Amino acid sequence: MGKLIHAKNAGLFTRAAKEFGTPVYVYDEATLIEKCRDVLAMPNAFGLHVRYAMKANSNRTLLRIVDRQGLLIDASSLNEARRAHLAGISLKKIMLTTQEVPEGEDRAELERMMLGGMKYNVCSLRQLREIAEFAKENDIGLSMRIHPGVGAGESATRNTGDDYSCFGVHRNDLEEALAFARGMGLRFNAVHTHIGSGGKPKIWRENIDRELGFVKQYFPDADTVSFGGGLKEARMPDEIAADIEELGLYAKQRVEEFFEETGRKLVMEIEPGTYVMANCGFLVTKVVDKKSTGENGFLFLIANGGMEVNTRPLLYGSRHPFYVVSQEGKLLSSDFDESTLSNRDELVVVGICCESGDSQSLDEAGQIVPRRMREPEIGDLFVIGGTGAYCSAMSPFNYNSHTQIPEVLLTAGQELKLIRRRQTLEQIVENEI
Amino acid sequence: MGKLIHAKNAGLFTRAAKEFGTPVYVYDEATLIEKCRDVLAMPNAFGLHVRYAMKANSNRTLLRIVDRQGLLIDASSLNEARRAHLAGISLKKIMLTTQEVPEGEDRAELERMMLGGMKYNVCSLRQLREIAEFAKENDIGLSMRIHPGVGAGESATRNTGDDYSCFGVHRNDLEEALAFARGMGLRFNAVHTHIGSGGKPKIWRENIDRELGFVKQYFPDADTVSFGGGLKEARMPDEIAADIEELGLYAKQRVEEFFEETGRKLVMEIEPGTYVMANCGFLVTKVVDKKSTGENGFLFLIANGGMEVNTRPLLYGSRHPFYVVSQEGKLLSSDFDESTLSNRDELVVVGICCESGDSQSLDEAGQIVPRRMREPEIGDLFVIGGTGAYCSAMSPFNYNSHTQIPEVLLTAGQELKLIRRRQTLEQIVENEI
Repeated sequence: MGKLIHAKNAGLFTRAAKEFGTPVYVYDEATLIEKCRDVLAMPNAFGLHVRYAMKANSNRTLLRIVDRQGLLIDASSLNEARRAHLAGISLKKIMLTTQEVPEGEDRAELERMMLGGMKYNVCSLRQLREIAEFAKENDIGLSMRIHPGVGAGESATRNTGDDYSCFGVHRNDLEEALAFARGMGLRFNAVHTHIGSGGKPKIWRENIDRELGFVKQYFPDADTVSFGGGLKEARMPDEIAADIEELGLYAKQRVEEFFEETGRKLVMEIEPGTYVMANCGFLVTKVVDKKSTGENGFLFLIANGGMEVNTRPLLYGSRHPFYVVSQEGKLLSSDFDESTLSNRDELVVVGICCESGDSQSLDEAGQIVPRRMREPEIGDLFVIGGTGAYCSAMSPFNYNSHTQIPEVLLTAGQELKLIRRRQTLEQIVENEI
Repeated sequence: MGKLIHAKNAGLFTRAAKEFGTPVYVYDEATLIEKCRDVLAMPNAFGLHVRYAMKANSNRTLLRIVDRQGLLIDASSLNEARRAHLAGISLKKIMLTTQEVPEGEDRAELERMMLGGMKYNVCSLRQLREIAEFAKENDIGLSMRIHPGVGAGESATRNTGDDYSCFGVHRNDLEEALAFARGMGLRFNAVHTHIGSGGKPKIWRENIDRELGFVKQYFPDADTVSFGGGLKEARMPDEIAADIEELGLYAKQRVEEFFEETGRKLVMEIEPGTYVMANCGFLVTKVVDKKSTGENGFLFLIANGGMEVNTRPLLYGSRHPFYVVSQEGKLLSSDFDESTLSNRDELVVVGICCESGDSQSLDEAGQIVPRRMREPEIGDLFVIGGTGAYCSAMSPFNYNSHTQIPEVLLTAGQELKLIRRRQTLEQIVENEI
């Protein structure tokens, strides 16, 4: 299936809609397996760990597929780590990299999980001080996330990695942190940076050079070096995905040079989330209404799922490919099918929330921009591609009291399998007293 | 308590934090009751209905307080209406205004609820056609939401009410809709517009004039006219709330003139959400870490709740008042207390999600803007005011697998009462198969 819905498989969405109702997320196992193999094939010198950034999508069935393909887990919260473990993934395969400072019961849980083999990536001086004694007593090697003070240049004042962000131990604090660790007799067997450079070859290279400098100067015990994530995926036809081969070849070369200089063989890690998951997911909605607001307005298509199931357009102005599928399973329009462009209208897609921002057709400034597609009939399916990552996982799914929608896996054997039931209204209110 | 935390009651937050953990939403019943009385005192000619726009916050305890004060319910989805009814609110007090077109089981449920007295505000030609026969058979009068083609001017292409939005039956479709209704023998006893003009007196007045024109020309049976919501609330010291008295006096005058012209006495409705609920809510978080990124960077305060519990800064760049409360319950800093300004630092507040946008200090462009406040110690409370509306109700609360946090009511009798338990990790995954 991949990111391109072909005419011959559009009927799958009709089947999913009939069997599970709409809206529904449909994930494609074959694409997921292919993406896992892609990243695992990244060139490397002395071994590669790929950690799936599970915040992108934490459904246990998807975690298990990713795990079976040989990826490890990057958890962003203690709960994510617990969730991966509940899904049956060994603690030894999980690394926790979080802004949290686990306290109380969470602290006890963290320690239990570390004793079980979970890796802990220290992200601040306070985290280091809090875990130091426990790590020392149990002779557990740590990882450290370094904040290099340099970002990937996505935004003026909101870049993971630059001085306008706060993830990791800042380079200004590094000597203090390491002096403290030496005093406690702690060892760091891994070093980590994540600045989201994975889609920008030049910055990716700079980041690797900088990080290997840190490893050489400060981390004599480290045998693993993580270059982070942010590997760009192309959701739209005009977007270009990260070149895994090119990025890997540079990393391989530098890790080999590091070995020649120091005699140390470093295992390399990367942490893709979007790259692995985005194009595996399709949000299948149904067209429930249409409205025109006249010559100076828009032709609106009202789908029965919007911001409460895919908030990315409202949050980021992100674009997703659109598909129109008839009730009979015929592909009527696809952003990947230029041949039908002459037969299209300009349409604005909105959802069922009472909110002006509930549109799938927004730009980065939050303004509405119509998109060209075949005008569907009421009852046809409107399918949003590229919704595997950061859709189900970060949408305000109970906004307007809409229930969290079901998730379905299209298995490698072409079966549609329910992997998360639709939430009930009773579940929404079950904790109210 | 109100929007201003006084030095003498800051200890309540320490108590709430100790008893229920952090982060936790704390709602102030006394303020909520006061706000309900405020809106109910709006000047009017022949009666006033205030419908609470429950999408702002749908906790059943809060719904019941609002109901006891005499407010009716504005529901944005069938589920909201069901939820209000589950909370014990009579169907007769609920009006449904939705983009949904209820089908199948939902359609049957809608009809059952309408038979029980729930009002249905028709929002599109299709909705009208779908409900016509049932309404006719059961002699049920309907309401119609009119889309005037004019917005309140909040944004260039994203205004509820203008031709770049699609809520309601567009004025171009009005004659067709009414001809169809006449043919079916349907009657409309209420007319509704909502363009979010409640904070803009000039546009509020224009909207009323326009709507009364529609009522006079097209709706001979209407006895109720809703002027919608959007009543502005002031969250920050430099913001100015809607003037209920001024807005009401104009509405009263025009409804009286309408009576003189036509002999028809119209009951007036308004639909506040934010105005009623925003300043009743406080999000109580704990400072778990601090980081500096040097001279050209920021001093960061890491609170244990951020975008997953208050997404408004990331979604809209909205500002909220900040309070710092010591572990002993002392108010150290408040946006409403200028006297401590000289003693403050510039700080950036971030949360515990692994996302560059997880900050409470963003502007409308999504850039980070530091705020002045007393630098807290680790363990102090960081309290975000103005979080009663559209925080608990629309946040992606399971992002990074963080659990939905508890909600606590400060009763009029000054008791802290748990009104929603903390979600468990098991509940997050309970629908996964």
